[in-house]
Amino acid sequence: MSRPEKPKQLLSLTAEETMLQLTVGRASGSRFSDPIVVANAFHAELVEEQVAATGASLKALVLEPIGRNTAPAIALAALAAGGGSDPILIMPSDHVIADIAAFHASIDSAMPLVNDGWLITFGITPDSAETGYGWIKIGEEALSPGVHRVDSFVEKPPRDRAEAMLASGDHAWNGGIFLFRADMYLAALEEFAPEMLVAAQQSMEKARREGVRIFPEAESFAACPSDSIDYAVMEKAARVAVVPVAMGWSDVGSWDALHAISNPDAGGNVVRGDVVAIEATNCLVQSEPGKRVALVGVEDLIVVVSGADVLVLPRGRSQEVKKLIDAMKD
Amino acid sequence: MSRPEKPKQLLSLTAEETMLQLTVGRASGSRFSDPIVVANAFHAELVEEQVAATGASLKALVLEPIGRNTAPAIALAALAAGGGSDPILIMPSDHVIADIAAFHASIDSAMPLVNDGWLITFGITPDSAETGYGWIKIGEEALSPGVHRVDSFVEKPPRDRAEAMLASGDHAWNGGIFLFRADMYLAALEEFAPEMLVAAQQSMEKARREGVRIFPEAESFAACPSDSIDYAVMEKAARVAVVPVAMGWSDVGSWDALHAISNPDAGGNVVRGDVVAIEATNCLVQSEPGKRVALVGVEDLIVVVSGADVLVLPRGRSQEVKKLIDAMKD
Repeated sequence: MSRPEKPKQLLSLTAEETMLQLTVGRASGSRFSDPIVVANAFHAELVEEQVAATGASLKALVLEPIGRNTAPAIALAALAAGGGSDPILIMPSDHVIADIAAFHASIDSAMPLVNDGWLITFGITPDSAETGYGWIKIGEEALSPGVHRVDSFVEKPPRDRAEAMLASGDHAWNGGIFLFRADMYLAALEEFAPEMLVAAQQSMEKARREGVRIFPEAESFAACPSDSIDYAVMEKAARVAVVPVAMGWSDVGSWDALHAISNPDAGGNVVRGDVVAIEATNCLVQSEPGKRVALVGVEDLIVVVSGADVLVLPRGRSQEVKKLIDAMKD
Repeated sequence: MSRPEKPKQLLSLTAEETMLQLTVGRASGSRFSDPIVVANAFHAELVEEQVAATGASLKALVLEPIGRNTAPAIALAALAAGGGSDPILIMPSDHVIADIAAFHASIDSAMPLVNDGWLITFGITPDSAETGYGWIKIGEEALSPGVHRVDSFVEKPPRDRAEAMLASGDHAWNGGIFLFRADMYLAALEEFAPEMLVAAQQSMEKARREGVRIFPEAESFAACPSDSIDYAVMEKAARVAVVPVAMGWSDVGSWDALHAISNPDAGGNVVRGDVVAIEATNCLVQSEPGKRVALVGVEDLIVVVSGADVLVLPRGRSQEVKKLIDAMKD
């Protein structure tokens, strides 16, 4: 279902709301100012429509002319926020957080250190030995209640290492959610990735603006090195802290992940759309308006209907969708 | 896929041609005159288009105002054929016959008795203990080479009886294919179902005609008793004979039946349409133009995509599609 013209962020996968809308909703209320969204220029209208439908107003919609990974994207956001001492909460908009109260409480825990200039990452309490995620070893010493030093970052570990980290109890998944003052992030960029900061600044100085839309100047931004915030900043900066949190987080990285975070019906089925299931158990069916899916006597299947495409595979193998996409490209 | 507005006869299930087209092709060549098709008035245009696409010309298209089962439908055909001594070959147009040479040879065997006034049915050599079919017990005595008296008809037997008949070697499935002189069929109707004959005659006398189209008058035809040729005639008439024949016959009565008569690929899959199968085995996939189906790592599944509908069920359970239709009606 996720395609370049309509990526996961803009789809309704876990609720009636799209994942972008759920993300906006997670940062609404009096403690938050209006959101800044950084997106690909191609998605400007869909993003505006979806945010407007939540009732929220955009502070800015920064439209990247080209992708340069997360560190430059966050630099654009920090600059769009004014680059001052106001804290900015960075959230990927294709994640699910089931326990928003726990998330907000973890933000509360982090705020004293954020205000003091620390760069905060949220460490997701792991429940499986994921080899596709970055992990964080949580330092023993608590800097303040609920906030720890980062002992080390571990990128996409092999299976045995992941299992050891899961068993250890002192490791967390790196959920890609960050909280820091805009000025502190820009200062860290100046120290560890000065070319990136210059490129971001130039592209924003020469940006075209239309209402809330900001179009960073393409040539300067294209000259920006491409790197993740983890590599470019978090793994290098000294005053980096982690807030461990169990908040029902998922990046919905596969159909199996979607099944795992959903509430099944009495037959164990998770169903979205017009579905007739007879003697079907433990299936995930994702359809769309105007399509009808009928299952009879099957179990542990994933069935997805999107546009002119139908996908059928067993639960537990949804990582292999990538194989399929490659085969289709061939 | 089979719906009132486009029943199985008018679908391409086993080949590029529709089942009606395959049926027309089975009775083409110099030994056959142009076909008479009896159909529901609703399907007139589709039938004409599909027959024309085969290159055949219709002798007549008899358009029933209402269904009255096979005995009256065949009466209309016999009357449209002129009601004389010319033999007529009656074929349901939703069956598959893989070995047309065997079928034609069985017609050759039957012709002497047909010309002599006998009513001939074709007895399909059974390969499973079907409980949904009518069976024929083949008489021991051969009337002429390859043609036997019918000992008895057995309607939809229970499982144990079907198994005994399969094991016996002297039983055949009643394939619903018949061969007799038009006048002999009408004479049999006069004897065993005189009201039916009168109704059919009256509706044809008052019929409206447009080119090859014949519209039997509705009121007379509606007054016709509804019955099958088996009950109304074949089980009652004295001079009834059966030609046992193994000709790769199937009524394609289920998706499992379609899988059974199709040639699978190296992975055991039978696929029609735009299908990508990765590590999928022994599946049947039936799609349609403009739709794409992707299977990963599944086995023994039936997947059908038709219009806005997607059906997924395991092989071996396709008889349960009826349950599904009932559930959908509810």
